[in-house]
Amino acid sequence: MSDSGTDASGSLIPMDLYDRVTAQGDKVRVLKSEKAPKEEIDVAVKLLLALKVDYKNVTGQDYKPGVPPADDMPTNSNGPSTTDNGDDFVDPWSVQTGSAKGVDYDKLIVRFGSSKIDQELVDRIQRVTGQKPHHFLRRGIFFSHRDMHQVLDAYENKKPFYLYTGRGPSSEALHVGHLIPFIFTKWLQEVFNVPLVVQLTDDEKYLWKDLTLEKAYQYSIENAKDIIACGFDVNKTFIFSDLEYMGKSSGFYQNVVKVQKHVTFNQVKGIFGFTDSDCIGKISFPAIQAAPSFSSSFPEIFKGRKDIQCLIPCAIDQDPYFRMTRDVAPRINYPKPALMHSTFFPALQGAQTKMSASDPNSSIFLTDTAKQIKNKINKYAFSGGKDTIEEHRQFGGNWEVDVSYMYLTFFLEDDERLEQIKQDYSSGALLTGELKKILIETLQPLIAAHQERRKHITEEAVKQFMMPRKLAFDF
Amino acid sequence: MSDSGTDASGSLIPMDLYDRVTAQGDKVRVLKSEKAPKEEIDVAVKLLLALKVDYKNVTGQDYKPGVPPADDMPTNSNGPSTTDNGDDFVDPWSVQTGSAKGVDYDKLIVRFGSSKIDQELVDRIQRVTGQKPHHFLRRGIFFSHRDMHQVLDAYENKKPFYLYTGRGPSSEALHVGHLIPFIFTKWLQEVFNVPLVVQLTDDEKYLWKDLTLEKAYQYSIENAKDIIACGFDVNKTFIFSDLEYMGKSSGFYQNVVKVQKHVTFNQVKGIFGFTDSDCIGKISFPAIQAAPSFSSSFPEIFKGRKDIQCLIPCAIDQDPYFRMTRDVAPRINYPKPALMHSTFFPALQGAQTKMSASDPNSSIFLTDTAKQIKNKINKYAFSGGKDTIEEHRQFGGNWEVDVSYMYLTFFLEDDERLEQIKQDYSSGALLTGELKKILIETLQPLIAAHQERRKHITEEAVKQFMMPRKLAFDF
Repeated sequence: MSDSGTDASGSLIPMDLYDRVTAQGDKVRVLKSEKAPKEEIDVAVKLLLALKVDYKNVTGQDYKPGVPPADDMPTNSNGPSTTDNGDDFVDPWSVQTGSAKGVDYDKLIVRFGSSKIDQELVDRIQRVTGQKPHHFLRRGIFFSHRDMHQVLDAYENKKPFYLYTGRGPSSEALHVGHLIPFIFTKWLQEVFNVPLVVQLTDDEKYLWKDLTLEKAYQYSIENAKDIIACGFDVNKTFIFSDLEYMGKSSGFYQNVVKVQKHVTFNQVKGIFGFTDSDCIGKISFPAIQAAPSFSSSFPEIFKGRKDIQCLIPCAIDQDPYFRMTRDVAPRINYPKPALMHSTFFPALQGAQTKMSASDPNSSIFLTDTAKQIKNKINKYAFSGGKDTIEEHRQFGGNWEVDVSYMYLTFFLEDDERLEQIKQDYSSGALLTGELKKILIETLQPLIAAHQERRKHITEEAVKQFMMPRKLAFDF
Repeated sequence: MSDSGTDASGSLIPMDLYDRVTAQGDKVRVLKSEKAPKEEIDVAVKLLLALKVDYKNVTGQDYKPGVPPADDMPTNSNGPSTTDNGDDFVDPWSVQTGSAKGVDYDKLIVRFGSSKIDQELVDRIQRVTGQKPHHFLRRGIFFSHRDMHQVLDAYENKKPFYLYTGRGPSSEALHVGHLIPFIFTKWLQEVFNVPLVVQLTDDEKYLWKDLTLEKAYQYSIENAKDIIACGFDVNKTFIFSDLEYMGKSSGFYQNVVKVQKHVTFNQVKGIFGFTDSDCIGKISFPAIQAAPSFSSSFPEIFKGRKDIQCLIPCAIDQDPYFRMTRDVAPRINYPKPALMHSTFFPALQGAQTKMSASDPNSSIFLTDTAKQIKNKINKYAFSGGKDTIEEHRQFGGNWEVDVSYMYLTFFLEDDERLEQIKQDYSSGALLTGELKKILIETLQPLIAAHQERRKHITEEAVKQFMMPRKLAFDF
């Protein structure tokens, strides 16, 4: 999976663009030195020139190798990747919005053809599980779904299902936004008591990034530790690296080939925007993200059963993969996977920007110290407060664009306290510094606890989670 | 592998075209019933109409479902797939020539950029191995190579290499032409004493044909029995089905991904003629045929070593796969595989036609009885003889276009006797019926012996050959 939309490329942040121009320049040099086909070099050079034009449009300056953009450069949000009609742009590698409040999710539901997670569905989940809905559900952070009522119908009839989520291991360090799907998946697993499979798409990262296979696999192992540290039950959870598991399961590859037979290049071109210059690995990769949606990809867990329904909690930017998967499923006689989609996790700098794993200041990382957390939030968290204390007291702050408040909706579980914070901030009773302090005091212990749990996860424990095996369920 | 060019599509034989129109009609019906995307249906319908036009051009009649073409229909060799300049047309799925003598192989060497297996190389093989060269070498049946001198240099310096060949299991029944690469590979293995890997591309056949995965795998097992019956040594030979082995070896998939990262859609479009309407499985398949060229695809055999040179004996139509492989190899730090190419095995009806697995009369099958062999050769083997005995005695027969004589070059090992037959046939001393009788008496015991060996190959023996394991070589 491509990182749940949180470190995708296609950004218009000057530093991201600078990195892309630099990377593309490197690529052109490599192609030339390897005497690649002229056609391929031409395409790469064209992209390089286009990126340089973008860079100049956004920063107002020419790209200079070795001279990164200054922090205070203006950003131009009317870049080349926004849609013509000003809609938000969302695909697995890129999220664009012009609004400080973030993406318009109701519009996205209409465009993607999914369904809203409304109060009726939230109430039904509470009724069926007998548990208070997770605050991600109560607060609309998981806001969209496909076929959840069908999953619940089956569950009420004692028919099993399983959970599938994933992560693209593009670096060692995860940030707090990466935890969202795992926190929610863990809750789903606990209230429904179902098996979970977690795909680490190290093959994808090898194909898309300038990484060796060995490095991509190593990121898988490091990322698996962070996932395990979320508290998953080893008896109910299978975590796998594509690079490793493909060679350990006949079921997985056979489902990959089945999907690959039923999807044309025209289709992936339309869905993912691939071009003739993309490598054949990228072009066929969507089948690899699709295959875990089918229970026969895991013969050890499901005893070869092909009919176990799958439910996929993921960020909305991953939906294109699963629209494709749902299109193919009936043609290969498998049930369509159901989905629950989350909103995007905003960068510290604001909801219209995106986090970048290469920019340590764009988010709070799971490796940050208490002091780093404090400094980053105080220095970078975009504020909805007024310029002076006097104005703030008089007019109040704007919680809708305030990143500290947004982060609290993700990590502060107490509904009443959150509501009080919103009111106090809007009224001006709560100052920006005070709001940031609440966020700091919420995140510091949460991350310290994660670090403590992660520290105790041994290589042996990782091996256990990643070993193909029967789980604590009978099929 | 796509059957070493012997049952490829693209033929202009009326019966083949009839089969293709029928299959395409079926495909359109399936697409419509599955409510496939309109675009996909349109493409399929266009191909159907084009095939019907071809059929009419070739047979002079409209295609009628359920009414196959009559045997004596005229064939028009100026079909849509020949090259504009009248050259032979060769790719992994199609071989076209207008000449009764068959493809012009010297021209092919120039076009493909390979090297001729000349007398010097044949002599060197004899010198290095101390063995009389196989009659396929003596008679130019294996006629072209890449880097064979490099393989021999290394061999003389005690550096190991390994053999890789394969087969696309598109049906249960092999014909005698399918044996050519295996007979030669067995000889190479014996004289050089090296490991051999045999790839059964059941995934390819699933992707290209109207087959289930289960059926394709079953063909792999049945074909493996015929390969084993050629007499390979289980201690030196690993036979694998892609559908099975991909799930048993991390090394294989990792090499597939490495190749997939370094080949673009533009490249496979140029090499294999893929289009935007092809499924992503076909588009990425060439990487799967490429991967066994690298020793690290077989960690059990080569202990993870990446530097063991590979030599691939195959029919010349498979060369495009390995041109691509040789292009990628240095970019992923692997040695380029060396190759030895064979000519095509002619259909009974003549060297300008092709054998079709769906037409039992186009060749001698390994399942044919002695009586069937006799009848087929007498009835169908294209003759270079004259119309009457009197004319034949006076002017002699034309061995260059005589299929019985061609078959003898493959299967009659005695050089002197073969030369005598050629002279006697050319002079008119040997009649067509007598020539056919020699071929019949050559093939009958050869095929009976094959059937006898195959009968004794147990499921257990197949399992042994197909189990990933160490072979009788130390690396």
